[in-house]
Amino acid sequence: MKKDISIFTLQRMPVYLNYLRTLPVSEGGSYISSGAIASALGLGEVLVRKDLAFTDCVGRPKVGYVRDELIKGLEDFLCCNEIKRAVVVGVGGLGKALLSYGGFGNFGIELAAGFDCDPDKIGENVADKPVYGVDDLGEVVDKLNATLAIISVPARYAQEVANGIVDAGVKAILNFAPVRLRVPKGVEVINIDVAANLAVLAAML
Amino acid sequence: MKKDISIFTLQRMPVYLNYLRTLPVSEGGSYISSGAIASALGLGEVLVRKDLAFTDCVGRPKVGYVRDELIKGLEDFLCCNEIKRAVVVGVGGLGKALLSYGGFGNFGIELAAGFDCDPDKIGENVADKPVYGVDDLGEVVDKLNATLAIISVPARYAQEVANGIVDAGVKAILNFAPVRLRVPKGVEVINIDVAANLAVLAAML
Repeated sequence: MKKDISIFTLQRMPVYLNYLRTLPVSEGGSYISSGAIASALGLGEVLVRKDLAFTDCVGRPKVGYVRDELIKGLEDFLCCNEIKRAVVVGVGGLGKALLSYGGFGNFGIELAAGFDCDPDKIGENVADKPVYGVDDLGEVVDKLNATLAIISVPARYAQEVANGIVDAGVKAILNFAPVRLRVPKGVEVINIDVAANLAVLAAML
Repeated sequence: MKKDISIFTLQRMPVYLNYLRTLPVSEGGSYISSGAIASALGLGEVLVRKDLAFTDCVGRPKVGYVRDELIKGLEDFLCCNEIKRAVVVGVGGLGKALLSYGGFGNFGIELAAGFDCDPDKIGENVADKPVYGVDDLGEVVDKLNATLAIISVPARYAQEVANGIVDAGVKAILNFAPVRLRVPKGVEVINIDVAANLAVLAAML
């Protein structure tokens, strides 16, 4: 069903959730209006209302949404209460930072294992998560029932790693390598190129 | 001028550049068509041609663009040959990984220094870059003539850090903390929330 929702709407859903979760209870009480959300996040109010209509929550005239209900609605939309396992391929500086980062749990995501081709890293633990050799991808992904993967290897290895991830049965990849991956239909990829984003910022000045 | 170009076009420019740079010379020779670029990157051909029109390059009928000219055009568009200095505030796992990453140089960006509030980190070097205390932000940014900053601190400190960055005169921020920053008009922010992106991927399955 969510396949019919635009990627832009999908990308705003965690933003709403993060915002509502961090809101101090004293500020705005138990109700929050679409206008207040829109203003806090720098978005249009109509857009916010359309996005939030994808949850089961209905805003009430004049007062808006019951905040806790809206949080619950967004959590349900993003399946935050279902554990989804992810693996990290490439345990360099970025891979280690990701394995050590606690924020994934906010969305029900568990980074369960790392993979690398460096024999010095294989068999080690990073933030209590085991690091396996890339040759074990298929077996470990299967055992963990992992549905998500992060690629944090240098660009020249990224396509090969993506092929291995897809062969292992993973259907969604977050790719930090600055290359466009060729993947079969049905496999979703989101690219995060940190350097390119900084270059875009520089071009905006 | 680039302020009139949509953020979506801006974000595709480094993607074109990365792609053209990594293309083996034997593949496709010295010319490349908008169709070939579109097909390789999974974009529409008309869109590619519109985007590339923002460079000074003109495609020739039947053969397309001279590849080296197009690379040069994109590099000029993104000012890759002008050094732009950036600082990293928050030298935890992610901050260290960023300071150690070599890919920024591809866009003429130099990550010149890190900042942290941990006395054990201040005065150290990460990948040969000095780490200063956050209190020195204004002075160091000024000395380095830094125009870009990356925020890689926990969410609860991000707004305070952003205020300090803005006070130091930086006009563009890449924010990894999962909060929307309040910044004055004229300051550009791009948010990268890694966990949220993984949550979006999970929702797409």
